[in-house]
Amino acid sequence: MTADADPDSEGGPDAVDYERAAELAAEVEDGTRRLHELEDHTDPDTAAAARRLLVEDQSGADLSSTGSYGFPAETAEPNIENMIGTVQVPMGVVGPVDINGAALDDERYLPLATTEGALLASVNRGCSVINRAGGATARVTKSGMTRAPVFKVGDVAEGLALVEWVRNHGEELSKAAESTTNHGELKEVTPYVVGNNVYLRFRYDTKDAMGMNMVTIATKEACSLIEAETTASLVALSGNLCTDKKPAAINAVEGRGRSVTADVVVPREVVEAKLHTTPEAITEINTRKNLVGSAKAGSFGFNAHVANPVAAMFLATGQDEAQVVEGANAITTAEVTDDGDLYFSVSLASLEIGTVGGGTKLPTQSEALDILGVRGGGDPAGSNADAFAEAIAVGSLAGELSLLAALGSQHLSSAHESLGR
Amino acid sequence: MTADADPDSEGGPDAVDYERAAELAAEVEDGTRRLHELEDHTDPDTAAAARRLLVEDQSGADLSSTGSYGFPAETAEPNIENMIGTVQVPMGVVGPVDINGAALDDERYLPLATTEGALLASVNRGCSVINRAGGATARVTKSGMTRAPVFKVGDVAEGLALVEWVRNHGEELSKAAESTTNHGELKEVTPYVVGNNVYLRFRYDTKDAMGMNMVTIATKEACSLIEAETTASLVALSGNLCTDKKPAAINAVEGRGRSVTADVVVPREVVEAKLHTTPEAITEINTRKNLVGSAKAGSFGFNAHVANPVAAMFLATGQDEAQVVEGANAITTAEVTDDGDLYFSVSLASLEIGTVGGGTKLPTQSEALDILGVRGGGDPAGSNADAFAEAIAVGSLAGELSLLAALGSQHLSSAHESLGR
Amino acid sequence: MTADADPDSEGGPDAVDYERAAELAAEVEDGTRRLHELEDHTDPDTAAAARRLLVEDQSGADLSSTGSYGFPAETAEPNIENMIGTVQVPMGVVGPVDINGAALDDERYLPLATTEGALLASVNRGCSVINRAGGATARVTKSGMTRAPVFKVGDVAEGLALVEWVRNHGEELSKAAESTTNHGELKEVTPYVVGNNVYLRFRYDTKDAMGMNMVTIATKEACSLIEAETTASLVALSGNLCTDKKPAAINAVEGRGRSVTADVVVPREVVEAKLHTTPEAITEINTRKNLVGSAKAGSFGFNAHVANPVAAMFLATGQDEAQVVEGANAITTAEVTDDGDLYFSVSLASLEIGTVGGGTKLPTQSEALDILGVRGGGDPAGSNADAFAEAIAVGSLAGELSLLAALGSQHLSSAHESLGR
Amino acid sequence: MTADADPDSEGGPDAVDYERAAELAAEVEDGTRRLHELEDHTDPDTAAAARRLLVEDQSGADLSSTGSYGFPAETAEPNIENMIGTVQVPMGVVGPVDINGAALDDERYLPLATTEGALLASVNRGCSVINRAGGATARVTKSGMTRAPVFKVGDVAEGLALVEWVRNHGEELSKAAESTTNHGELKEVTPYVVGNNVYLRFRYDTKDAMGMNMVTIATKEACSLIEAETTASLVALSGNLCTDKKPAAINAVEGRGRSVTADVVVPREVVEAKLHTTPEAITEINTRKNLVGSAKAGSFGFNAHVANPVAAMFLATGQDEAQVVEGANAITTAEVTDDGDLYFSVSLASLEIGTVGGGTKLPTQSEALDILGVRGGGDPAGSNADAFAEAIAVGSLAGELSLLAALGSQHLSSAHESLGR
Repeated sequence: MTADADPDSEGGPDAVDYERAAELAAEVEDGTRRLHELEDHTDPDTAAAARRLLVEDQSGADLSSTGSYGFPAETAEPNIENMIGTVQVPMGVVGPVDINGAALDDERYLPLATTEGALLASVNRGCSVINRAGGATARVTKSGMTRAPVFKVGDVAEGLALVEWVRNHGEELSKAAESTTNHGELKEVTPYVVGNNVYLRFRYDTKDAMGMNMVTIATKEACSLIEAETTASLVALSGNLCTDKKPAAINAVEGRGRSVTADVVVPREVVEAKLHTTPEAITEINTRKNLVGSAKAGSFGFNAHVANPVAAMFLATGQDEAQVVEGANAITTAEVTDDGDLYFSVSLASLEIGTVGGGTKLPTQSEALDILGVRGGGDPAGSNADAFAEAIAVGSLAGELSLLAALGSQHLSSAHESLGR
Repeated sequence: MTADADPDSEGGPDAVDYERAAELAAEVEDGTRRLHELEDHTDPDTAAAARRLLVEDQSGADLSSTGSYGFPAETAEPNIENMIGTVQVPMGVVGPVDINGAALDDERYLPLATTEGALLASVNRGCSVINRAGGATARVTKSGMTRAPVFKVGDVAEGLALVEWVRNHGEELSKAAESTTNHGELKEVTPYVVGNNVYLRFRYDTKDAMGMNMVTIATKEACSLIEAETTASLVALSGNLCTDKKPAAINAVEGRGRSVTADVVVPREVVEAKLHTTPEAITEINTRKNLVGSAKAGSFGFNAHVANPVAAMFLATGQDEAQVVEGANAITTAEVTDDGDLYFSVSLASLEIGTVGGGTKLPTQSEALDILGVRGGGDPAGSNADAFAEAIAVGSLAGELSLLAALGSQHLSSAHESLGR
Repeated sequence: MTADADPDSEGGPDAVDYERAAELAAEVEDGTRRLHELEDHTDPDTAAAARRLLVEDQSGADLSSTGSYGFPAETAEPNIENMIGTVQVPMGVVGPVDINGAALDDERYLPLATTEGALLASVNRGCSVINRAGGATARVTKSGMTRAPVFKVGDVAEGLALVEWVRNHGEELSKAAESTTNHGELKEVTPYVVGNNVYLRFRYDTKDAMGMNMVTIATKEACSLIEAETTASLVALSGNLCTDKKPAAINAVEGRGRSVTADVVVPREVVEAKLHTTPEAITEINTRKNLVGSAKAGSFGFNAHVANPVAAMFLATGQDEAQVVEGANAITTAEVTDDGDLYFSVSLASLEIGTVGGGTKLPTQSEALDILGVRGGGDPAGSNADAFAEAIAVGSLAGELSLLAALGSQHLSSAHESLGR
Repeated sequence: MTADADPDSEGGPDAVDYERAAELAAEVEDGTRRLHELEDHTDPDTAAAARRLLVEDQSGADLSSTGSYGFPAETAEPNIENMIGTVQVPMGVVGPVDINGAALDDERYLPLATTEGALLASVNRGCSVINRAGGATARVTKSGMTRAPVFKVGDVAEGLALVEWVRNHGEELSKAAESTTNHGELKEVTPYVVGNNVYLRFRYDTKDAMGMNMVTIATKEACSLIEAETTASLVALSGNLCTDKKPAAINAVEGRGRSVTADVVVPREVVEAKLHTTPEAITEINTRKNLVGSAKAGSFGFNAHVANPVAAMFLATGQDEAQVVEGANAITTAEVTDDGDLYFSVSLASLEIGTVGGGTKLPTQSEALDILGVRGGGDPAGSNADAFAEAIAVGSLAGELSLLAALGSQHLSSAHESLGR
């Protein structure tokens, strides 16, 4: 056991050269250096310290906690510019919870980082009920990261010609796209025509990577081929039909990243004893709130708070926090089985995750992936990210179950009070 | 200047009693203690250390970075259960940028925490252009945090009676709701009827608080009054028309939290010299990508990547990361002015933020709010959160401008190549 | 009883002057007259005949049925230009059905015009079940026709100033708007700001008129006041937040025209004996199809086929067929009551209808309104359109109930077959 | 030329046996006959007359116009039950307009039936401008009618197994489905998993038929195969992911029926001389209203009033009026070309139309199809419906162009007035 080892002796806040930091801060202030180039003139920890001095000076803020973190600043160089330190978000665990997945069939602690009190307690209660029910089933039902460039054409006749060219040159497009990547595979290209705009939604298997960079580079190469061989002109590598980091029906309907479902049958006696409510009450609340309420709200999210566990697990594991947006495209269902038990499920349409690249290499984040046992590339490739998706789905299931049950037990007690009037 | 002071001497990872931690871990493992109750038997840092030992044992993970953070664990007690340490996300700054807001009329560094390389560089470039243009205008155009309980009624006749009761008892409802809060004010209650379900969307002024807890408690009190005075039965305090942490048209249309717009007129020469493109190219790309592309995608987000600066500023300042979902409900517009310059704007419909409560009190997060000069309650109340909203809007504007300009300069060079063919 | 009286002797296809028609057709063909100005040179029936000659000549079509209709062409002058005759759509009736509405509390035949075989049979079956259940309750839960002009402003600061001006000048705006109409009342103006665009959604009580023309004229007057008193510039009288004749969340959420719900409790024995299924089966199908299926489809219509009765009743009664679009914004709910019966409802968010003006004055259409007993202005004003909305809601309820029951009985028999395997 | 021939001598309102009608009406009233079975006891025209008597008696309505129509009632037997006559909607023509389509490359009058005055005048103006511009280009860019049954499975593991079974048995599914039809071809089956629900969206080429009946029957056969070969249980032949007659993103994004675009480049001088506005003004209004306004409204319809020409052409030609809902899923774009002219387009995502079956055989409706030259099956099969789609797209283009130009000229004059202040 290695917990609480000293930070890396070759860097970190303890290694700051304060004199140099003060010099550099002064140089930025008098205009002889620029804020973002400090790393060219000192080590990253001292550069960060220099920026803290500057920002403290300008704002009056005390940045001592920001400057007190557990790893060398150079670790974060691929992840940020103008670093001043870190934001430190409390991380905890729930579980262990039984996951009956295709890629992950085991019990796991789930790491969540959040600032919302009671969230872990709630998800933990759900995990406990899932375990009593024999664990949750989880499956990735669709997979693929997308990028959708937009081309300008002369008119719709030329647009249709482009669509047909694409349909007839799938192999060349795959060859071009895949020439840029060791792992990615182009699965399909779906065209959408709007006036003199043609959007081509490229969908790739990116294995264990979330894959935005991979598919952007690959699609760029394919676009070069299209521009060379047709009269179409590329306007933007992303034409917003991808759709990245925006709420969009195309993701809710067709999926992006992993589409994953987790479900469980909770015996009636467990619902009653552990959750103090009934399968009927949970089903009723799910219908009135998550289905009819979300319908009336014009929502793509027919759930209670899936974004909570998604955001907390994203944050813990170094995922792209802006992609919580797509993670919220989830539908929760509940029903009473013929045997009187509770069938409960959550289906996330567009979970964009990776176990390699991006923020996953940062020290605390990679430790969180280790807790799940999914850090790095899987064997076979893609299996770690599949397992990760299953774990998030089960965490989401636990969160939904716990919150709806809480509403159910309140509803029940409220109903009892009403009867007593 | 106080940067890089020692961590609080009364706590933090350095204060762990490792022997006690090992004991507690063993007790959880043999079932005599439960994971979440360790804080009852030792100090919070030692409890977190005990959990790290357990999780390392179960998963094989090395949690040393997670356990090496810059503040006492008890600081995080309101924010998390089952704490094992912190996730540490690189934080940097962009700017300073000129903000011509109603609540914030000054220049500010903007703190962003992210793991996405190049994001700060991009936003920083946008800030620099905004400064050249004389700063960005920003205004909060609507404000109010919502909670929408769902009631069950006998039939639609009873539903309409409830709607009318609510319309006629606004004062009593306000009195009940506001009895629970020192700051919150109930602004309106909007009813929605679907079959025998009545959803009442309560909208409050929550001043500098994001306000979910405040409005939940206040609405609960109002619901008690409704249940006492009418035949309606409360099903759930949230009926999903709030809508919290789900993509929903009701938020994109009607707003939630702050609706805020930032805009700027960038002189043509600045666009050309600094961004290497033209007002016309940016406008064209905005139309084809952000407007027509998002239209075709069935999106509520008509922007390029507003979720990026929103998520990064949320993370830096202790906002609820799951509410990035609503933060993405943004529309970017671009147009060439009569003088040939670039008018550019971004309007965020539903920015749910606070400068008090929640994660804002955590050490690193409160420092980030200090960088912006908006920590704590404003004077007058609400002005700090307004200022914060204006700052996020300007950060989003900078991000949009920079990305569209990058696409524009690529488009231009691509067009030049095409001409050369 | 006056059925099948002779057509009006002063006009109609029988009154065509064929010689003159041939002359006029020749004159259009040689360019001395234009197609749309024939009514200036002869009676409307002869003008229509002349156009038929021309179109037959150009297309080879035989337009004899088109030219054989039951009323003088001049009757249709306010409704069409370039008339060549009529399209004749089969009209039938269902019912009579018991409607327990606030404005219509009686039994009524419902007129439907359609070309879709089996539709009336299906709706009729639903009506029969509703009658067995003691009739359907119906209520208009919200009301108001909207028009939302878009203004251009200099920047968001000016936009916010406009919003505040509007908030402070409600009375002047009402006075201006209402100066143009005898019946309409301005109920509220809701502002939406996007960049330098300000959309003002005016909502009116238009009584028995569908009211698009009324609110357009009234809003135009209000816009003149705004342009005179502020620096804002009107871009278009409709900025698409009205929203007219487009599927839009704003209508599904906030309503437009009448929001109306109909519901019924059908005793279990009636469900079983008349519909050959069970309350449980109907509820299950409604959840899997209308709620979860529509959720996954990214829909605003959580129903089976509400557009069918809506379109058929619109067509029969001279409503604007393009507004069937908004009529489809409906949610159907089903649940098993504590007594084991079926609670069933349909809620139409945005039913834009009138009993005066538009196509309601045409001979066959006004007869259909007479069948419902709602032709012309009601007493009090608005009560006829309310009654009409209740009737459409009950027709929609009947259609939903019948179709879901049909699916239910198939599901049941399919389940039986499965059990037999 | 055959206009205004006598109605078919073998039927029609003139052939009513009034004595028999009165007898039958009395029998229904005294309960010895039922309303819908009158055709079993007399000819259809007399049956309709009997119903008119009954309805007149119950409602006090005078149904003489309804009873005065131009064809034998038996003609309508496949289209309606409980017929009482017809509703007669004024029909006119616009054009002829130059259509440069792939299936229709010629000039055509377009038949529109409506009760909205000024609609034909407006569309006609647009046609005139299109002709001046050399005609409009039109193309069907995607095609296929869909039906999406919903199956219940045990859990998501079984759901994924069903998805895989479907992927591996495409040929068998096609064989089963196509065994029920002479024309239809199954093109693809797309699975969507939500909890224990699996939706399979079957997409067919239905040639010249709108095809709902065809695909329903074919899909039913395929479902029988699935139920026989897997453990999945069919819940409903339509699970609402089709999506029929409801506003739904899946149709707006993926299309249903025909996806069709029409576009035109209008020379600046034509815009100025004929439309009294400028390419710049039309582009600006399109952006502020149709793009940004619809974005803010949460709409799937980014157009001004495409539903108007769609509804009017649907009504004229016997299409299903309830499918106007999907016809409104359209995006209009406008831009100023490098030469200063106006590029203008409209793209309809989901136009569900046919030239055979349904209401297309009715006398007046088939005449309208003759005006377009697209009645009946095309050669090759499907070409008539393609041509029809192109014609509707051009009609929609004309309507959009005319309305935006009208707004543009008002905007211009308003701007002039403002300048004069």
